[in-house]
Amino acid sequence: MGRDPRLTTHLALAARALGAERMYLHPPDPELAARIADVVADWGGGFEVVGAPEWKSVVRGAKGPVVHLTMYGRPLEPALRRLARATEILVVVGGAKVPSDLYRISDVNVAVGHQPHSEVAALAVVLERLLGVPGPGRWAGARLTVVPRARGKKVAVTKGTP
Amino acid sequence: MGRDPRLTTHLALAARALGAERMYLHPPDPELAARIADVVADWGGGFEVVGAPEWKSVVRGAKGPVVHLTMYGRPLEPALRRLARATEILVVVGGAKVPSDLYRISDVNVAVGHQPHSEVAALAVVLERLLGVPGPGRWAGARLTVVPRARGKKVAVTKGTP
Repeated sequence: MGRDPRLTTHLALAARALGAERMYLHPPDPELAARIADVVADWGGGFEVVGAPEWKSVVRGAKGPVVHLTMYGRPLEPALRRLARATEILVVVGGAKVPSDLYRISDVNVAVGHQPHSEVAALAVVLERLLGVPGPGRWAGARLTVVPRARGKKVAVTKGTP
Repeated sequence: MGRDPRLTTHLALAARALGAERMYLHPPDPELAARIADVVADWGGGFEVVGAPEWKSVVRGAKGPVVHLTMYGRPLEPALRRLARATEILVVVGGAKVPSDLYRISDVNVAVGHQPHSEVAALAVVLERLLGVPGPGRWAGARLTVVPRARGKKVAVTKGTP
């Protein structure tokens, strides 16, 4: 539920880079979804941004625990231990103004530290703790792959993929 | 070295919330530094944003390892093992366009995943892995402290502090 387009882009890219499968975005932003689809076309994997005209139906339709990240919630560590067994998790982050319903219909309200900070940072920490950071190497269907280096930049280009 | 003020604000808040002591900001942004100082006045701790007219002198003056976060760098996990013993670390994040000198004068270029994502997310993951997430409780000098709750928001106000 981010609003500022640059922040929402960071949120989507961080979600993808740290292993999320899908981002539901309310309100929908087709231009942003298309920009992220371009990143996926270049860098691989199956991440997608799905516009969500009604955020409540996404929350109610979740097949696993719904985790709302908020500085007012319960501490992270015990929550992570309970989430470790879930096979599908919906992590919800809001912008500056979050509807109060969200606190009630989420399964758990979790704080990545009880200080004002950034939904991008909070999401990144939770995903890293749940899934780890993906290693180097080509993502499925990638046209571009980083070749890790001590200095400078190297990118391998796979030709022949459409 | 962020440029977009909202993203730089997120970067500063995430740095503070996840245990950094100081942020050097190039180019300097006194208004942003003042906004963060207001957060510190409310929520405590000693974090500060210091304007850095010349970023190279900050990097060269660092007392510990200089870690540049870039998707082109070496994988995170081995780098973290080497950093675990350092008592002071300078983490450098850039915006879209990073001067190539930075790759050379940093001690190590480290990738939090080798995918395009967000400097806010990358910084958050590194700080969490180095320092952990601070628990609930009052930060030194705080006027406001979150009282963690399963639902809704509760903030304790300490009166009598200036």
